[in-house]
Amino acid sequence: MIPKDHPRYKSLVTREHLADCAKKGIVSWEGLTSHGRGEAFDYLLGEKTSDSARRAEQTAAALLRTARHPVISVNGNTAALAAREIALLQKASGAIVEVNLFHRTPERVEQIESVLRNAGADVFSGEAERLLPLSHDRAFCRREGMYAADVVLVPLEDGDRCEVLVAMGKKVIAVDLNPLSRTAKKATLTIVDEVTRALPEIAGACSSLSDEVCCSLVAVLDNSVFLKEARNEMAARLLHALD
Amino acid sequence: MIPKDHPRYKSLVTREHLADCAKKGIVSWEGLTSHGRGEAFDYLLGEKTSDSARRAEQTAAALLRTARHPVISVNGNTAALAAREIALLQKASGAIVEVNLFHRTPERVEQIESVLRNAGADVFSGEAERLLPLSHDRAFCRREGMYAADVVLVPLEDGDRCEVLVAMGKKVIAVDLNPLSRTAKKATLTIVDEVTRALPEIAGACSSLSDEVCCSLVAVLDNSVFLKEARNEMAARLLHALD
Repeated sequence: MIPKDHPRYKSLVTREHLADCAKKGIVSWEGLTSHGRGEAFDYLLGEKTSDSARRAEQTAAALLRTARHPVISVNGNTAALAAREIALLQKASGAIVEVNLFHRTPERVEQIESVLRNAGADVFSGEAERLLPLSHDRAFCRREGMYAADVVLVPLEDGDRCEVLVAMGKKVIAVDLNPLSRTAKKATLTIVDEVTRALPEIAGACSSLSDEVCCSLVAVLDNSVFLKEARNEMAARLLHALD
Repeated sequence: MIPKDHPRYKSLVTREHLADCAKKGIVSWEGLTSHGRGEAFDYLLGEKTSDSARRAEQTAAALLRTARHPVISVNGNTAALAAREIALLQKASGAIVEVNLFHRTPERVEQIESVLRNAGADVFSGEAERLLPLSHDRAFCRREGMYAADVVLVPLEDGDRCEVLVAMGKKVIAVDLNPLSRTAKKATLTIVDEVTRALPEIAGACSSLSDEVCCSLVAVLDNSVFLKEARNEMAARLLHALD
């Protein structure tokens, strides 16, 4: 249906995949729009991982490696785009994988858990309780899962939950292509990169970094530097793009 | 469903409206993602009309006013977001309103035409032919409509059709929040602004500008200046945003 000669072929195929996932109920309709927001910021990054983002990804690995109880929170878009990458990161980091949704129904939770399991992830499921102080359904999580976590990786996150998790004393790693978003600003560490590029980088660093390097990366972590570098990168592309 | 205390309430309500339109078939699934792309760039504009965009909107009015056969091309997203604004612009400019879709079915064309008619637009419909040299269904238009136009306003456009219309000798006015897109670069005039803000500005200028001002705005039109100003505006927000 999408002509192969279209210059945005890859992007259109991903959109079509997400639309199919939306028809099945895995991705929410609003999730399609969120994806588009991300696409635009990725466009400004040149659709590649910057040096700064790679350092942020190594720091994320260091946070996961030094955590007592790390949790990876997965929503519909993350499962649709990167279920395999989530499973690989789980293997590399030993983190719990837990589904947390803005547009939550028991059916959607089960569907997304099954997408993750089919991709090889070991999903922490069971009864969720309203444990986070939020007025919407992202308040639901599991007592032994996200509620007990000291480090939470939240790819493609909604801003207010990020804020709440930080206020609860947790270290929050966000993957967010918008360096100006509330999530990006509130997180302990923000990776400004596309999720299917970011997760394998984090997994690779989980396997390769020494304990010593992990400790020093955590010690020098300053998220404002990562955000500033991402903003500079995007601004440069806006100012100097010639093609 | 969306909590009123959510800081992005307005944006989420618009997304929900578009999702409803997608369920009805008015907006394509991929159109939801396109909307998100626009949201991101609008975010970088501070979600307001810049002085530069306002000058571009006045120039658009001048092009429509001085046209022999102006046509406004409408797709699903434009109808869902701005049917009323299209009807008002039609009244102010005297342009033909014609539906043109990437994901084209006879049912979708009828649905979108009916959304526009309900909002007060006089829609030019009837048999469409494959008249534009494109491999997808945006090739379909009407011989006495877009095919015969000298000026075409294309809000929320796909890049390759813009290029084809320009190659056919038409003046193309694009409304595109991405100043780096192919559409933005290929159009005769690009308005880097959100469509529901842009269309009323154009309509207002259609009614208020003198013939003399119209002629001089058309004479000095240099799209590269508008694009550069939009890029500078966005870059400044990235570099200096403090909140």
